[in-house]
Amino acid sequence: MKNAIVGQSGGPTSVINSSLAGVIEAAMSRGCDHVYGMCNGIQGFLEDRYVDLSEIFVKPMDIELLKRTPSSYLGSCRYKLPDPERDGVKELYDEIFRKIEALNIGYFFYIGGNDSMDTIHKLSAYGAQIGSGIRFIGVPKTIDNDLTVTDHTPGYGSAAKYIGVVMKEIIRDATVYGTNYVTVVEIMGRNAGWLTAAAALAKGWDCEGVDMICLPEIPFSVEKFVEKVKKLQEKKSSIVIAVSEGVKLEDGRYVCELSDDVRGIDAFGHKALTGTARFLANTIAKTLDTRTRCIELSTLQRCAGHLTSRTDITEAYQVGGAAVKAAFEGHTGEMVTLKRLSNAPYQCTTELHPIAEIANLEKKIPLEWISEDHTQLKQAFIDYAYPLIQAELTPIFVGGLPQHISL
Amino acid sequence: MKNAIVGQSGGPTSVINSSLAGVIEAAMSRGCDHVYGMCNGIQGFLEDRYVDLSEIFVKPMDIELLKRTPSSYLGSCRYKLPDPERDGVKELYDEIFRKIEALNIGYFFYIGGNDSMDTIHKLSAYGAQIGSGIRFIGVPKTIDNDLTVTDHTPGYGSAAKYIGVVMKEIIRDATVYGTNYVTVVEIMGRNAGWLTAAAALAKGWDCEGVDMICLPEIPFSVEKFVEKVKKLQEKKSSIVIAVSEGVKLEDGRYVCELSDDVRGIDAFGHKALTGTARFLANTIAKTLDTRTRCIELSTLQRCAGHLTSRTDITEAYQVGGAAVKAAFEGHTGEMVTLKRLSNAPYQCTTELHPIAEIANLEKKIPLEWISEDHTQLKQAFIDYAYPLIQAELTPIFVGGLPQHISL
Repeated sequence: MKNAIVGQSGGPTSVINSSLAGVIEAAMSRGCDHVYGMCNGIQGFLEDRYVDLSEIFVKPMDIELLKRTPSSYLGSCRYKLPDPERDGVKELYDEIFRKIEALNIGYFFYIGGNDSMDTIHKLSAYGAQIGSGIRFIGVPKTIDNDLTVTDHTPGYGSAAKYIGVVMKEIIRDATVYGTNYVTVVEIMGRNAGWLTAAAALAKGWDCEGVDMICLPEIPFSVEKFVEKVKKLQEKKSSIVIAVSEGVKLEDGRYVCELSDDVRGIDAFGHKALTGTARFLANTIAKTLDTRTRCIELSTLQRCAGHLTSRTDITEAYQVGGAAVKAAFEGHTGEMVTLKRLSNAPYQCTTELHPIAEIANLEKKIPLEWISEDHTQLKQAFIDYAYPLIQAELTPIFVGGLPQHISL
Repeated sequence: MKNAIVGQSGGPTSVINSSLAGVIEAAMSRGCDHVYGMCNGIQGFLEDRYVDLSEIFVKPMDIELLKRTPSSYLGSCRYKLPDPERDGVKELYDEIFRKIEALNIGYFFYIGGNDSMDTIHKLSAYGAQIGSGIRFIGVPKTIDNDLTVTDHTPGYGSAAKYIGVVMKEIIRDATVYGTNYVTVVEIMGRNAGWLTAAAALAKGWDCEGVDMICLPEIPFSVEKFVEKVKKLQEKKSSIVIAVSEGVKLEDGRYVCELSDDVRGIDAFGHKALTGTARFLANTIAKTLDTRTRCIELSTLQRCAGHLTSRTDITEAYQVGGAAVKAAFEGHTGEMVTLKRLSNAPYQCTTELHPIAEIANLEKKIPLEWISEDHTQLKQAFIDYAYPLIQAELTPIFVGGLPQHISL
């Protein structure tokens, strides 16, 4: 019997370890002697940093704690495998395959987003080229919800729930003085507005919802934005706005580039985005003579293990198990996808899809889900997102704090 | 039978409505025909904005929802009553008393922090001067925990729990790449470091805790701070620092004044503090050639009704009830205080104290609770804070989001 190995890559989520738990339990139940975990993804594996998860997770309680522990248990990386066609790169791929074979590994799983699926894609393509029997399967994970083909991505439901909940709380807090006040809340999402759109979920019989939602799908105009805020202020005193960190001007520049806080570029060539809300809050304060506040939800929106969606955690676990099942049935070079069967009642199942058609691509919000004035989401989005935030999985509180499990 | 009136003032907390529920239930059970609520505190009351809470809260479920609803249900204000000795001010006080008497009010409750206790102090002093029989009792509330005499203040326990929980999550998130990274988390607290100190609660068998805590009680040196971070980086890659928004230089200037983001002064003469973490993160990035991130916990630390301490919510309810009991027993010009009887097991009761000795004063962290190198809290603080964050009161989730009750 061949062994299995699993890695986590890209930004953490609050349910990425539930997928890891799904992989571990499914691989062990199918008879793998060893289920290895790469520390810090493929980058750590290249430095021979890995652990034997089948030796660590012998108690069911530990697996349960793992499911409820936010952020990547194995650590993560933002390492981009070079193109195997490039000169001098073949050695790197040969080294990876040597290391995999030395551990008698037959099944290779990688939990991540579109950048991480690029890794699975390149490894499986190279494996096919050299006639390797190792099976490579991608396990989807990203709060950004921007993977194509799959209906949605594990990690998104919990982040969306977190955003819906804290927007309700922020709205309540901001209205308390009854004075003119504009709150601008910055939410993650570089090119796709799925997370920012989740602010629309705050609206209900006990909350009038956010007053404006600014998505990266719609070109941004600072002048029009100020104009809209001014109009809103004619009707009510406290205005709460959800804005994506990735909103861009017509000319393609990020709005945050207008501020003074640009911070370098990561391994995938992405600019660090920060300061959008601060820039907009300052602009409003100067132009409209009103008090403002900017709030960046920052890393909490992706690692708030204390507030997760049980639907999301369950699906994260399921895609882990489905990846193992697929590998054992002979699949390789594919990613597990989620297929929604029905909205009410919500029903969802897993499928498989060639990873070459998923890696490096981004799924954005359909423009027809955005209101004509570009400030709200239509019911179609609510119908889509609502089932994903349902039900809770309470952390295991000990001494007043949620308990986690660490390497 | 005289009626009662209650107001909420100052910054919201996630349990301030539990105190309101305590006042409403106790006043109604003692036979008040009407329990009025001032909208936006004394400021709204001066504009005749009030509601009849005894008509609104007839269903027990609504009182239960109120207890679990964050931020001031009645709205708040930051209105400072002028000194009654000043010229032309007597008319204002006479007007307030006329309005109170017109509603046949015998019991006046104000839920708030040290600024709000100033209001109760002035009203009760003026009442004594004119021989009024109206009883004025203060109900303590502040996440800042800086009220004197009382062992602690309702609102603090939940904010401290929130901070402990999210610091654990932030630490997990920040360590995930294994690369050099400095995260600076800005926490509320103008002059007293109680909230920032709560970051120390994150430490446990599953979390190594924050690496440095910077309190306003200790004069701050930017040079020494950078030096300490550099030393920490020699030992570990991910450094997480909790810093109070109120840290000040030796010369008395706030550290955030070194940044470019100062935003005006409120009705009590307090400077708006913001940008401390951003300034420090930018300073480290420039000096130490490392990636940094700044996180402001912002309003979420005071209004996160989704993550409260049951101990805190229960005590908030109790001080509301104790205020009513005191007023009915003839007390006036006093605030309800909490007296800790024992740490383990935790036992706490309520007392009363003259408000003149509480209003406008601030309680800071005892210096002997701070480690010699000024970067951590000693066990004495943990022993103090630990009981206050115990147990949870889960929100009532409907459709995936906590339900609130609104005016």
